[in-house]
Order: sequence, then C-alpha cells, then structure tokens
Amino acid sequence: MKEYKEKVNFALKRFLEKKLDDGKYSPEIKKLIENILEYSLRGGKRIRPLLIIFAYKCFKDNNEQAVIDASICIELMQAYLLIHDDIIDNADLRRGKPAMHKIYSSGDFGKSMAILAGNLCSHYMYDSILESDFSDKEKIEAIKYLGWIAERENYGQALDIIPGFENLNEEDVMKIYELKTATYTVQGPLYLGACLASAPSAEIEKLQEYGKNIGIAFQIQDDIIGIFGNIEETGKPNDSDIKEGKKTLLIVKALEFANSEDKKFLLENYGKKNISENDIKKIREIIEKLSLDYCRKKMSEMIEKGKNSLPSDLRDEGKNCLIEMADYISSLA
Amino acid sequence: MKEYKEKVNFALKRFLEKKLDDGKYSPEIKKLIENILEYSLRGGKRIRPLLIIFAYKCFKDNNEQAVIDASICIELMQAYLLIHDDIIDNADLRRGKPAMHKIYSSGDFGKSMAILAGNLCSHYMYDSILESDFSDKEKIEAIKYLGWIAERENYGQALDIIPGFENLNEEDVMKIYELKTATYTVQGPLYLGACLASAPSAEIEKLQEYGKNIGIAFQIQDDIIGIFGNIEETGKPNDSDIKEGKKTLLIVKALEFANSEDKKFLLENYGKKNISENDIKKIREIIEKLSLDYCRKKMSEMIEKGKNSLPSDLRDEGKNCLIEMADYISSLA
Repeated sequence: MKEYKEKVNFALKRFLEKKLDDGKYSPEIKKLIENILEYSLRGGKRIRPLLIIFAYKCFKDNNEQAVIDASICIELMQAYLLIHDDIIDNADLRRGKPAMHKIYSSGDFGKSMAILAGNLCSHYMYDSILESDFSDKEKIEAIKYLGWIAERENYGQALDIIPGFENLNEEDVMKIYELKTATYTVQGPLYLGACLASAPSAEIEKLQEYGKNIGIAFQIQDDIIGIFGNIEETGKPNDSDIKEGKKTLLIVKALEFANSEDKKFLLENYGKKNISENDIKKIREIIEKLSLDYCRKKMSEMIEKGKNSLPSDLRDEGKNCLIEMADYISSLA
Repeated sequence: MKEYKEKVNFALKRFLEKKLDDGKYSPEIKKLIENILEYSLRGGKRIRPLLIIFAYKCFKDNNEQAVIDASICIELMQAYLLIHDDIIDNADLRRGKPAMHKIYSSGDFGKSMAILAGNLCSHYMYDSILESDFSDKEKIEAIKYLGWIAERENYGQALDIIPGFENLNEEDVMKIYELKTATYTVQGPLYLGACLASAPSAEIEKLQEYGKNIGIAFQIQDDIIGIFGNIEETGKPNDSDIKEGKKTLLIVKALEFANSEDKKFLLENYGKKNISENDIKKIREIIEKLSLDYCRKKMSEMIEKGKNSLPSDLRDEGKNCLIEMADYISSLA
C-alpha cells in the first residue's frame, strides 16, 4: 500500500505542476494553483486512489502507470469537496494547516476564493481522466462514474447539512452515509478502477456490496474518531461533530436507547455551538454507554459482509489488496 | 433565433426533469433539483447554446436534435456560475427572483445549499454531453473544451474579485474579459459546436478571432448596461457595479482620462458600498463624459473585427447566424 501511495502522490504532484502553466495568465492565478498544489499534497491516507488501483488489478495486470495517473481524479475530487466542506462547516483547519478559505483571508473574500479553488479542482478531476492513457470508451465510462459519484456526494452533503438530527432513524442515517461517504470513498473508486480495466458492467455491479458495506463502515469509524479520537494521533478535532450536531449513527442510536433524562440532555446539548467542556465530556460518556458498542459491532459486521461479498473470480492480487484495505479501515477507529 | 431558443429551453427542461428521478433519494433532494429546474428556466437570452448550434451549422447540417440536446451543457454551466457568482457578490436577486442562496434562507445555510446546487449544475453539464447522441470521440473533445472553458472562467472570476481596480490598465482588463467572459460566452460555445460537428482543429482555431472579439464586445456592452441600463428594460441593477467597484473598461479608461479632481472623486467613491444616490449619479456623469464613447467605439470595432474574421469556407447558414448574433449583441447596449 505504501508503495502505491507514493506513486499516487507523485502523479498528483506532476499533474498539478503542469496546471501551474495556467499561471501564465497572471501571478494571482499562479498563486491560486500553488495553493491548490500545497493543499492537495498535505497528506491523507490516499485510500480512494488505492481502491481505484486495487479494483483495476482485480481485472487487469498491465498498464499500471496509466491507472495510477488516472487514480488521482479521486484525490482531486477529495480536494474539491474538502475545500467546499470547510466553507460550509466553517472549519478553520484542514490537516493541521489553514483551510483554503483561511489561506486568503478570513471573511467573505477568503470564502469566495475557496469556492473558486474548489471548482477548479472539480474541473481538474475530469481533466486527469481525459489526459490518462486509456481508450475513449474507457474515459467516457470513467467520466460517467465521476459525475455520478460527485452528484451523489453533493446530494448526501445537502441531506447532511439540513438541520435536524432529532427525528432521524438508522435507515435515514444509512441513506446519508451511502450517498455522502460510501459512494465516493469506496463504491465509486471501485467502479472507476473496474471500468478503466474494461470490466463488463455485470462484473462491476458485483463490487457494489463490498463498496456499500466498507464505505459505510468507513463512515462509522470516522464518526467514532470524530468523538472519541485522540487529536494528536488523528489530526482531527474530537468536539466539532458534537458542536455541529452532526448526523451520525452514534447520536441516532444513543437517542433511541436513552432513558428520558439522557435523551433530554442530548437533545439540549448536542449541536450546541457554545457547549461547555464539561457537557462535551458528558455527551461522550452517554454515547459511550449507549451506542458506541452498537456502532463498533455494526462496523465489524459490515467489514465482514463486504469482504465476503467479493466475487471469487477476481484476480488474486487485486482481491487480496481489497481485503487488506477493509481490515485497514476497520483498524482506524 | 427564437425558434432555436425554444428548442433549447425544451431540451433543458427535459434534461432536468429526468434529473428529478434522483429525487427518489429523499424529498429534500427532490426539492433541491426542483429549485435548480426553476432557476434554470427563469429566462435568459440563451446566446451561448445558440452559438453552439450556429457553430455546428458552420460545418454540418444533419443531426440537429443532437446538437440542440448537447447545447444545454453551456446553460447548465451558466446556472452553475451564476449560482456561485451570486454567493460571491452577495446578490439577492437573479432575473427578478431570489438568488439560489436566498431561496433556502438568508445566511450561511442558504449559501451552503447554493454552493451544492451550483456544484450539481457543474456535474450536470458534463452529463448532458455524455447523454447526447455523438460519438465517444466527439464527446471527449467536447468535455475537454467544457473543462477548459470552466477553468478559464474560474481563473477570470478570481482575477475579478481580487480587490483593486485602481492600478489596472486596458490590457489587464482585457485579460480578465477574455478569461471571464469571452471564453465562456462566445469562444467556448463556438469551439464546442465545431468539435461536435467533427471540424478539424485547424478549422476550429479559425473561429478564435470571432470568439475573442465578440466575447469581449459582449462584456463591454454588459458593463455599459451595468451602469447606464434601464432596470425595467434589462432586469439588471445599474448601481451594483459602482458599489462593488467592478473592474471594467469604463472605470479604467475614465481614470486614465480624468483630471485630478474627477480622478480623486472616482477613487474615493467607486466601490464604496454605502455610496449615496447623488454620488452614484455623479460617477455616471464622469464616466459618460470621459469613457463611454471610447468603450462604445471599442465595442463596435471588435464587433466588426469579429465578423470580418470569419473564414470564407464556412457553411452559409451557420455563418449568417453568427453574423446576426454579433449584430444582436452589439444592439443590446
């Protein structure tokens, strides 16, 4: 995994350095692209491009450099989504450095530049497929999936930000997870890799169960980190989900299982921007008591279900990598 | 022109009504797509899709429905850009109705939903090409141009919003006009139409001079309307450019030609958010006195230059429409 991660980073850097040629238009545009380059290379686990590569390897062995080059499309999507998400969530930091909208200035101007920077990344993502070494037919298929992923992601994000976690049930949350996370983190990358390997659509469909289950499991572990993670280890705040009132399986199940006293406390304090440290701690305790185990178990079941759903006729190298990736994701929380 | 405009509207409506199927995910998503549909069909001159169709007709006569269906890509880009522009400019109205970010609510939530709505339109625009009845090769070429247009547009928009009109010269403004307007309003649509007609790239290149000149002329007329237009006729405010300090040829040339008194007044008042009605009037008078004729003349010259640059070997029907379009644009201001 580490070897491919470095190759992906190298391809991403090369792609964006080529984009710097657009800086010829003016020094301000050059600076904007440099910001995108710096932002994109800040790190990240590169799970999504690796999944593209592994899915490709489930069907084909040759032309590896081409799929590495194409796999950066999903990191460019990631940059686009994170830049816009941080505006939406009013988040100041991303991977320990200023969010894109904080690079320019706080306030409206920074947000405006970040909207544009995110937009640019979204166009770059299509470019990266267009420039890759695949047939027109394969590119067309990949571009179709890219659009499908991005549309679902934006739909999921809309559902996520519409206020109100109070009346959601498990099914509602699962729908958001599927749209917002599973498609773009696992299912979409798998489809992209498989279609670049010219896998028949019936074969591509067979990856759906893995994609959905591992993708939702990924979101559950991300939610657990979002409340119980160690900031120093994960680089992510562990109070913002609580302050934002994020729609997670943790809170939905906690509310479902809570007695009236705990329920009242959660409804009054979860999603409160100016909540005290003490009350954050108390929310953590209630969730730990009521729904953490449930969510961990759900995650493990989905990891197993996803792994077991992989069709038997996949090429071993790719399939083994997908199994390793599922275990890696489950180890994160 | 009117006949094609209606056909474009019909195709756009049909495309977005099909997208409503995505509303199956949830009522909130259905509502979001309905808002996009309503927004896109509010009106507009449809200059850009018509240019795609006319450019196509410069090279080919058959398969007209296919190019009409594909031409809506540029209206979807228009919706995407306008939705985001209105967030950036903090504009409340678009075509006499609430801007997208005002449909949901004022404040951050409305803006967040509008970021997502704009994003969706940008993915829809690629979809509309993918779904059209062209060969993979033609689609790939069209998608390349779409990305190129959208990237240049975002670069131009960045240059436009970086504060400071004071030290710009004519060349700087022309660069912004070219990136922000000419590419996406004229040059890009021409290239899209020509590539869908499988015109050789050398032939496509020959449309560049028309695209650049007519596109910049379009922006100059838009700027004139932005200061001297009759709101009732144009539906556009005629004070926001002054309040925002928009970077236009009108202000740049006015500053260049101004005596020290007028210059001082312009520098102190152009771009002042809380400027008085009286001072707006005075700015109009100074610009009318100093740079309006210069800009009108520039616009006419560019219209003529553009028309004369059209290669002689284009098919008559398409070429005549392009000439008519140039005259139409020049008649708007």
